Amino acid sequence: MNALHAQGAAAKAASRLLALAGTEKKNRALETIARLLTDRQEEWLAANAEDVAAARAAGMSASLLDRLTLTPERVSGIVSALREVAALPDPIGKTDHMETRPNGLIIGRRRVPLGVIGIIYEARPNVTVDAAALCLKSGNACILRGGSEAIHSNRAVVSLIREALEASGLPADCVSLVQDTGRETAVELMHLEEFLDVLIPRGGAGLIRAVAKEASVPVIRTGEGVCHVYIDKDADLEMGAEILYNAKCSRPSVCNAAECVLIHREVAESFLRKTLPLLDKKAVELRCDPAALALLQERGVPASESDWDAEYGDQILAVRLVDSMEEAIQFIHEHGTGHSECIVTNSYASAQHFLDAVDAAAVYVNASTRFTDGGEFGLGAEIGISTQKMHARGPMGLEELTSWKYVVYGQGQVRE
Amino acid sequence: MNALHAQGAAAKAASRLLALAGTEKKNRALETIARLLTDRQEEWLAANAEDVAAARAAGMSASLLDRLTLTPERVSGIVSALREVAALPDPIGKTDHMETRPNGLIIGRRRVPLGVIGIIYEARPNVTVDAAALCLKSGNACILRGGSEAIHSNRAVVSLIREALEASGLPADCVSLVQDTGRETAVELMHLEEFLDVLIPRGGAGLIRAVAKEASVPVIRTGEGVCHVYIDKDADLEMGAEILYNAKCSRPSVCNAAECVLIHREVAESFLRKTLPLLDKKAVELRCDPAALALLQERGVPASESDWDAEYGDQILAVRLVDSMEEAIQFIHEHGTGHSECIVTNSYASAQHFLDAVDAAAVYVNASTRFTDGGEFGLGAEIGISTQKMHARGPMGLEELTSWKYVVYGQGQVRE
Repeated sequence: MNALHAQGAAAKAASRLLALAGTEKKNRALETIARLLTDRQEEWLAANAEDVAAARAAGMSASLLDRLTLTPERVSGIVSALREVAALPDPIGKTDHMETRPNGLIIGRRRVPLGVIGIIYEARPNVTVDAAALCLKSGNACILRGGSEAIHSNRAVVSLIREALEASGLPADCVSLVQDTGRETAVELMHLEEFLDVLIPRGGAGLIRAVAKEASVPVIRTGEGVCHVYIDKDADLEMGAEILYNAKCSRPSVCNAAECVLIHREVAESFLRKTLPLLDKKAVELRCDPAALALLQERGVPASESDWDAEYGDQILAVRLVDSMEEAIQFIHEHGTGHSECIVTNSYASAQHFLDAVDAAAVYVNASTRFTDGGEFGLGAEIGISTQKMHARGPMGLEELTSWKYVVYGQGQVRE
Repeated sequence: MNALHAQGAAAKAASRLLALAGTEKKNRALETIARLLTDRQEEWLAANAEDVAAARAAGMSASLLDRLTLTPERVSGIVSALREVAALPDPIGKTDHMETRPNGLIIGRRRVPLGVIGIIYEARPNVTVDAAALCLKSGNACILRGGSEAIHSNRAVVSLIREALEASGLPADCVSLVQDTGRETAVELMHLEEFLDVLIPRGGAGLIRAVAKEASVPVIRTGEGVCHVYIDKDADLEMGAEILYNAKCSRPSVCNAAECVLIHREVAESFLRKTLPLLDKKAVELRCDPAALALLQERGVPASESDWDAEYGDQILAVRLVDSMEEAIQFIHEHGTGHSECIVTNSYASAQHFLDAVDAAAVYVNASTRFTDGGEFGLGAEIGISTQKMHARGPMGLEELTSWKYVVYGQGQVRE
C-alpha cells in the first residue's frame, strides 16, 4: 500500500465516524479551527512567505503572486467565511418522503454525507480552508490536493486544521493534504475510486477539463462559463445596456461573467448606441461577426471561429447579430457551457419561452448573469457552480455535497 | 459523421423538443405506443420468433431462451406496465425553493429532464419498452443498445414506438435503437459525451462493471447486490429465520436478495436450529466460516475468500459468525455493495445504531431486503436500483431521471 492509498483508506475510515458526528460536534470543530487559525496565524503566514519567495524567484506573474499571498487581513476574511459555514443549517439527517406503506413498513429518505471528497485545486491558499469547512459541515472527509506553489502554506494550515479536529474529538484524517504535488500522484488520486466518492476540481477551465477527462472517480464539473446575454427585439434597451455592462465588466475573471452578446437585428443599431458608452468606460474589446462589425466600424474587430467558444476572463466581448430568438437559443446551445444565460425582453411570451427552452444551470430574464452564486441564490456558501446535470446543477451548497439513504423500520415484514 | 454520431445528434435535437412537450402530449404518445403494441403485436412476435429460433440454433440455455421469448401474455404484461408509467405523476416542471430575494429577484429551481439517456442492456425485450417509457415520461430522449440476441425483436418494437411518437406529434428520434450490436459500437456509445447526458447499464454485474470502467459518459451504476442479513444477539430468532428465508429464497436471482447471513455468536446455535428447516425447503447450500461450520457440521461447506464477495443469484448462502454488531457493520462495509442491508434485533439502541452507521442505499430493521424496489418504496416504476451515492441512490423512479435548472425573473437587477 503506497502513501496515497493509505491516505485514502484513512480518510474513508474517518468519514465513517464523521458521518455519525452530530451538528454540535462538527460546529465545535469548525470553531476550534477558526480559533487556531486566528491565534496561530503566524505559522501559516510564515509558511506562505516561503511559498511567495519561491514563486517570486521562479518568476510568477504579479496577478498569480497576489492570489498566492496571505496577509493578516486575508486570514481574517478566511476565518470569517469559515464561521459563516459553521452557522449554516446542517443538511445531514433531514429525512423526507417518510411514510407508512400499506404493509406497515415505515420508509424514509435520510440525508447522509457523500463520504470522501477529493478536491484538486490551484495555488489559492484560501480554497484549502474553504473546501475543508464545507466538507466538514456536510459530514464528508476530504483529501485536498493543492498546487505545488502553495505547498508550504497548505501544509501549515492543514496541520492546524488536523490539530483542531483532534482537539474536538474528531479524527484528524477527516482532512488531509496530498503531500506530493507531482502530476503522477494527482493522476493516482483521480483513480482512487476505492476510497473517493467524488472528485471536485476547482480552478481554471484547463484544470477542470483535464480532471474530467482523466478521472475514473466521478467528477463534478464546475465553473466553466461561456455565458450569453441576448438582447431581444422587445428589450428595454437601456436596461439591456446596464445588464450587459454589469455581466461583462463587473468582474470579468469569474465564471458567471458574460462572454458574448447576441443582439436581435431589428434593435442592433440603437442598442449598440446605448451600450457603447458603458463598454468604452472599461475599453472593452469587441470581437464581432460581419453584421455587427458593419455597424461598429473601427470600434470592433472581426471575430474568428474560436471567439464563439472563448471564456475570455477579461474585458473582451464577442458580439453577434441574430434574426430571431430561436436563432439565439440555437447559438447558445451550440456554444454555451450550460452555466448562465440571459434574455433582456419586455415580451411576456419571449421571456417564458427563453426560460423553458434554454438548457443551462441558471436562466435569467432581465437580470445580470453575475448573480449565479450560492450566496445570491440563498444557499449560503458554495463549493462551485456545477455545469453538469447529474447530481447537482448550478451553485453547489452544503446539500449538494450530500446523498441519501432509505431507512426502513419493519416488524418482521417479508415479501410475497 | 458516422451513424452513431448522427444518431446522437438526432437524439439531442429531439430531446430539446421533448423537454418542452407537456404531460398531456407525453401521455398521449405513451397511450399510442400501448395501442400499437397491442394492435400490431404480431409484428413484434414474429420478429421475436426469429431471434428465438436463432438463439436456439446457437445453443442458448433454456433459462436465457425463456427470458428472450415473448408471448401474447407477456406483451400484454409489458403494455400494462407501460400504461402504469403513463399514469404516474410527471416530475417535469415542478419548481421548488422559489423565493423573492432581498434585491427583488424571483429565483426558483425547476425540474427538467436530464436530456439524452443511453441504456445498455442484455437480451430481454421487455427492457426496451420499459426503458423507453420511463425516459419518455420524464422528458428524456433515449438511445437503446440491446443485446444482439434480441436485435430483431428490438428493431420491430422500436419501429412501432417511433411510429407512435410521430403519430402523437413528437419526434421519432426521442427513442432510437443502436442498429449495430457489435462491441466496437457499444464502446463508441460509452464515449458519446457530446450527446449523451448519462448512461445506465441494465443487466448483470459483469455488464455494469465493464460499462462503468470504460465509459467517459457519466454512468449510474445499478443493481449490484451483495446484501447481508445480520442476526443480532437481541434478535427475535423466529422473525430472523423468516426474514432470512424470504431475503434469500423468495427470488434469488434479483439484486435485493441476500447473499450472506452474519450471526451473533451468542445466538448462533439457536438461530441455526430455527432457520435450517426453512433453508432446507429450498436445499440452500451453506458456505460457512470455520465457526459456523463447526455448528453446522455436514450441513455446511467451507467458504473460500471469494464467497464473501459473491453475488450468487442462486440458492446459496454465505454464513459467518461475528462477535459483535460492530464487527458485522465493519464486515458489511468491506464486502457489501451498498445496496440493501438488514439487522434483525429487538434492541432499540442496536436498531438505531445500525441504521445510522451502515452505509448502503437501503438499511432495514426487521424486514426483508427484498423490499428494495421502486414499487414497494412508493416511487412507482423504477429503471434500476442505484448503488452509488452521486445523483441517485436506491430505487430510481422518474424523479431520479431528472435534473433542475434555476429560473430567475428580474426587473433589471445588476450585481454590485
